[in-house]
Amino acid sequence: MKNIQVEIDHAVYFAGEDKYNALQQEAVGAIEKLENGTGAGADFLGWVNLPKDITEAQLADIEATAKGLREACDYVVCVGIGGSYLGAKAVIEALQDQFAAYKKIKPEETHVLFAGQNIGEDYLAELQKLLEGKKFGIIVISKSGTTTEPAIAFRLLRDQLEKQVGKEEAKKLIVAITDAQKGALRTMADSEGWKTYVIPDNVGGRFSVLTPVGLLPIAVAGFNVRELVAGAREMMEATRHPGPDNVAETYACVRNALYQAGKKTEILANFNPKLHYLGEWWKQLYGESEGKEGKGIFPAAVDLTTDLHSMGQYIQEGERTIFETVLSVERPFDALRIPQEQQDLDGLNYIAGKRIDEVNKMAEAGTRLAHEDGGVPVVRINVPTLDENTLGALIYFFEKACGISGYLLGVNPFDQPGVEAYKKNMFALLGKPGYEAAGEELKKRL
Amino acid sequence: MKNIQVEIDHAVYFAGEDKYNALQQEAVGAIEKLENGTGAGADFLGWVNLPKDITEAQLADIEATAKGLREACDYVVCVGIGGSYLGAKAVIEALQDQFAAYKKIKPEETHVLFAGQNIGEDYLAELQKLLEGKKFGIIVISKSGTTTEPAIAFRLLRDQLEKQVGKEEAKKLIVAITDAQKGALRTMADSEGWKTYVIPDNVGGRFSVLTPVGLLPIAVAGFNVRELVAGAREMMEATRHPGPDNVAETYACVRNALYQAGKKTEILANFNPKLHYLGEWWKQLYGESEGKEGKGIFPAAVDLTTDLHSMGQYIQEGERTIFETVLSVERPFDALRIPQEQQDLDGLNYIAGKRIDEVNKMAEAGTRLAHEDGGVPVVRINVPTLDENTLGALIYFFEKACGISGYLLGVNPFDQPGVEAYKKNMFALLGKPGYEAAGEELKKRL
Repeated sequence: MKNIQVEIDHAVYFAGEDKYNALQQEAVGAIEKLENGTGAGADFLGWVNLPKDITEAQLADIEATAKGLREACDYVVCVGIGGSYLGAKAVIEALQDQFAAYKKIKPEETHVLFAGQNIGEDYLAELQKLLEGKKFGIIVISKSGTTTEPAIAFRLLRDQLEKQVGKEEAKKLIVAITDAQKGALRTMADSEGWKTYVIPDNVGGRFSVLTPVGLLPIAVAGFNVRELVAGAREMMEATRHPGPDNVAETYACVRNALYQAGKKTEILANFNPKLHYLGEWWKQLYGESEGKEGKGIFPAAVDLTTDLHSMGQYIQEGERTIFETVLSVERPFDALRIPQEQQDLDGLNYIAGKRIDEVNKMAEAGTRLAHEDGGVPVVRINVPTLDENTLGALIYFFEKACGISGYLLGVNPFDQPGVEAYKKNMFALLGKPGYEAAGEELKKRL
Repeated sequence: MKNIQVEIDHAVYFAGEDKYNALQQEAVGAIEKLENGTGAGADFLGWVNLPKDITEAQLADIEATAKGLREACDYVVCVGIGGSYLGAKAVIEALQDQFAAYKKIKPEETHVLFAGQNIGEDYLAELQKLLEGKKFGIIVISKSGTTTEPAIAFRLLRDQLEKQVGKEEAKKLIVAITDAQKGALRTMADSEGWKTYVIPDNVGGRFSVLTPVGLLPIAVAGFNVRELVAGAREMMEATRHPGPDNVAETYACVRNALYQAGKKTEILANFNPKLHYLGEWWKQLYGESEGKEGKGIFPAAVDLTTDLHSMGQYIQEGERTIFETVLSVERPFDALRIPQEQQDLDGLNYIAGKRIDEVNKMAEAGTRLAHEDGGVPVVRINVPTLDENTLGALIYFFEKACGISGYLLGVNPFDQPGVEAYKKNMFALLGKPGYEAAGEELKKRL
């Protein structure tokens, strides 16, 4: 794959070539399971062919809806949690101006906000104050429509919208992304006549960014979803077959080799603050896919060089059970050079005239060598730039590698049985009908 | 301490009471070292008495400077990295409206922005575009004035400011927080006549939030630094002596007991998104203080319930080497209830009329029980509300506990020798005078 390179030499050396080679052998079967649907969790493999299954008509429809929302709204609030939140957030943050919130937007531009990803009373109150008297719309994303966090936020925001513009007008400003046929949100949407999109049955939340779940918010934010899908499609083709050129296989094998060598924590390190939420998305993807049955690499993320001044000390000299995966972006968009100064009190004139990014790249290289010297193996993922095409490729790359990696680890990478535990307790403690007995038991323990 | 409670019952049970009791014995000596300056790193204990060493005149001076900047500027950019960034950021985010960036500010209000905490070419270019033609000021924070990240940002922003308002006017809009006597920034500030504040020699970066490093930006953002200091002072008095009522000792002992029991990763979990950056600040405080000599708890942080839908699966069922410290805020500021709906399609009517935060609290309790059932010991830190006083107490609590904890672990909690490694390599790769030979060696390895 020309777009994305994975450099693993030092990490393989560290983990042991024998381990890596054995995993490469196993990867043949893992990839086969993904392509043929013969492994655990095969009901949730819809994401594998998603980039080519999306039709021209579907993309055009998403674009038209996005255009309508952009024309009608200054703010569009996406209501969702987990996979119904992180993918869109990650792509939008990677593409947009980091100070967009402070900048005046032009007509037909729209700020995309998020809600329903927490149960913050102040968060929701402050959001509602912002939206008072403003032109806003809602994209509500939930397979069932009953997940507590988004359901609460949606009740409040829908109420507010209907009060501000009237029930009829509000109908045009709400879009629901939900199950094709069943569930509370589907029923509501059909009876109210909201525009809807379908979350495919065979695509789990954390793999859903290339469905309308991610594509609609990304389009509303003004980005090119066709290019995103095109990038993903290229990566899909490039990672279909096993072999040393399959970058997803490479990444999956090297991280499992390191895990077997005792490296239990993986730190995804970016050198570009726009990638912060891609790290959060990646944490869900890998943590939820692999963290089960008492095993799995613990996923952590840092923004560098920022966090070299916080987590840097630990990475350099703490417990030697970590490895690092560096996400490196070759080219920034802007061109900014370090000014020369007559007096060189801060001692920076030796780099005056250089692009800021040249310094960043030397920080990256210097960090890699320092961490390797400190006993932290470093994997490097190199992408040319942060545009829609590259991000689409990167997303699919991580998804595919995650499927392979989960099979190499010997788990079902497509379930998340542990996520229910807190919900059941919460329902019981809140006295939800059907949970009364459990509630009594839990209250005794508190 | 009435303000902050630490609940450890389950965690002590998990780690073993013997371990905890033994650590409590050791804590007597650790606290003595901190109070009497008889331990490792004693040159950096200025933070211990900081809350009572700050004078009325110093606070008044900070407030006056902040008022001047607020009147003159729509934006004040704080230029700093690590401890010269995270403390102020954490306090401001904990106190301010989460949608402040989108809201119009009144005259004499000011948005506080941050720069110099990364080497992002796009970040700086986008910031400079935002500031074009705007009324802005700069607080530059650096002991030496030569740290690469802030030095680059300061060159660019100072240039821009001088071009926009002229060299003379710019002098009134720049404040330097730096060494009392030496270093590049001190020299610059004195020769240019900028207002300055001193970073005390005996306070390390990660312990500096209660010096002007944190106080000035926090005051510029419009918050009450007297209350912040008052809260810290109360906590200082409450944690001076060893004993079961010393909450800092309690937290330090329980986390070391868990570490000894094989819990190598601590996840600080908030249930209030405003605390996200407090988690980042905490990661620096503990990671940099303890991550050395091949040991130390790996610090991670999550925002809940948000991340129950990303990291939740791993916490519930992944490798059993983690424990969780929950930061719980008793009372939100706003009062928002879940509306009743005629049709109860989303099934929320069983909690209609409840405050959002009641649901959040049940989510918290349910999560705690679920995680404990999953083999994750949970420590709970309870604070009454998120105001300046409480935050001051919380900050001092974490600092004091960190000092005790580092001594219990047997390291010098006040140095950070590993942070230099990447810098040296970066200088060498950039060809900084004096590093030429090292540069040749490193280039061969790349």
